[in-house]
Amino acid sequence: MELLSEHGCFGGTQRFHRHASAEIGLPMRFALYLPPAPKALLVFLAGLTCTEETFTMKAGAQRLASQLGLALLMPDTSPRGANVPGEAEAWDFGVGAGFYLDATQAPWARHWRTESYLLNELIPLVQRETGLTKTGLFGHSMGGHGALTLALRHPGRFQSLSALAPIAAPAQCPWGHKAFAGYLGDDKAAWAAHDASLLMRAQAAAPYPQGILIDQGLADKFLAEQLHPEAFEAACAAAGQPLTLRRHAGYDHGYYFIASVVDDHLRHHAERLI
Amino acid sequence: MELLSEHGCFGGTQRFHRHASAEIGLPMRFALYLPPAPKALLVFLAGLTCTEETFTMKAGAQRLASQLGLALLMPDTSPRGANVPGEAEAWDFGVGAGFYLDATQAPWARHWRTESYLLNELIPLVQRETGLTKTGLFGHSMGGHGALTLALRHPGRFQSLSALAPIAAPAQCPWGHKAFAGYLGDDKAAWAAHDASLLMRAQAAAPYPQGILIDQGLADKFLAEQLHPEAFEAACAAAGQPLTLRRHAGYDHGYYFIASVVDDHLRHHAERLI
Repeated sequence: MELLSEHGCFGGTQRFHRHASAEIGLPMRFALYLPPAPKALLVFLAGLTCTEETFTMKAGAQRLASQLGLALLMPDTSPRGANVPGEAEAWDFGVGAGFYLDATQAPWARHWRTESYLLNELIPLVQRETGLTKTGLFGHSMGGHGALTLALRHPGRFQSLSALAPIAAPAQCPWGHKAFAGYLGDDKAAWAAHDASLLMRAQAAAPYPQGILIDQGLADKFLAEQLHPEAFEAACAAAGQPLTLRRHAGYDHGYYFIASVVDDHLRHHAERLI
Repeated sequence: MELLSEHGCFGGTQRFHRHASAEIGLPMRFALYLPPAPKALLVFLAGLTCTEETFTMKAGAQRLASQLGLALLMPDTSPRGANVPGEAEAWDFGVGAGFYLDATQAPWARHWRTESYLLNELIPLVQRETGLTKTGLFGHSMGGHGALTLALRHPGRFQSLSALAPIAAPAQCPWGHKAFAGYLGDDKAAWAAHDASLLMRAQAAAPYPQGILIDQGLADKFLAEQLHPEAFEAACAAAGQPLTLRRHAGYDHGYYFIASVVDDHLRHHAERLI
């Protein structure tokens, strides 16, 4: 956990770290906000093209996190420096687009292991270093997909869950098709195991009986083609999973939307974690 | 006032504009946040290397501005596209480093007219377009210098004033020496007319009897050599100008510091403007 920089921030400290990841096989960066009196850990997974700095810098989350006692962990969105041929040719695949899963297909399977990285390596590391055990998970767009799928695939690991404009049914949208075909191949059962709506449909009982919060802007240009919150909404209804899905007129897919609603997500998690 | 983009933000709208500037002789960009019920205008001047987007994206100011009814105007920090030889060779002179003055020296005098641009063109334009007349001014680093000097050089134009880590005595620091020599030449009287501490020393009475607010981080690596808040503090004491100068242990020169104290600046201005 090499410390790259630290900055005083709302009475706490905003840190940027680098560490050697065994799962990824490369150095990985992450950002960690430590409030003055941390009581629980909240992990934010970012969207396509983002890094550990994006939410850290743009969301304005530290103000209320400081008050609530939430430490914030912002991982990066993919391996960097792997030098896989073609890794940087597209903004929605490869670098900056790990999709929070372990690739099974060459040439990605060697390094693109962001699910195992988060679950087996980074989050346990930060839990140990901070002494915080209660952990919530949320994310935006590709990171909203990551939050919903990792929380559903790893029962008991996260005590609270929310998402902002998530890719909620990737097996039926172009971003998901491209990522799943490239990372997982043609096996549609493998795709289904990383699709939040299909995972929720398969639940025997509500995995988050205290409720899931999702916010979605209605001026989001990706909404109709890529996000499909209605599929996740229907899956929650079928599974008996309490869901608060708020649709906001006039808000787009970007960080001015995230900043506008992030406080409600911090409160959602604090109420369930602390 | 061409609209480049707009984003829903805390119940209001974050807009990015471009317009043809007669003073600059080039297109200029600016950002404007309009809260749901605007009551006054607050202008933020950014620091070296920044654009109209920096504070807009990083400071987290829109949340409280929305509640208080403050419209926020974020100008760019210099002309762009002038193609003056050497304009982009340094990060502290030329592009991104207008220093909020009208250059008198070739080759800068043609376009580097950011004082006249702001006072005679952009701020009146935005006041007309929004119908807001009460106007406050603040800024960071080079923009803190800009806020203090423009407010002192143009009595009655701004009804409230504050600064974050301002270059408070540019006639006695390396950044100021370089900028003033390049833009204004060797005339030390011209330098003094753009030095906040020397301008304050020359006041016959307190120009802001309701007080000026300055915040300064004590872990700011530029503090000792470049900023000199103590010079401005002494000048305010000599002029009878009420000043709240807060020194914050553990905070640096960056936007995590700005975000941590920006709400206090918004309240300072709202109390004096609304």
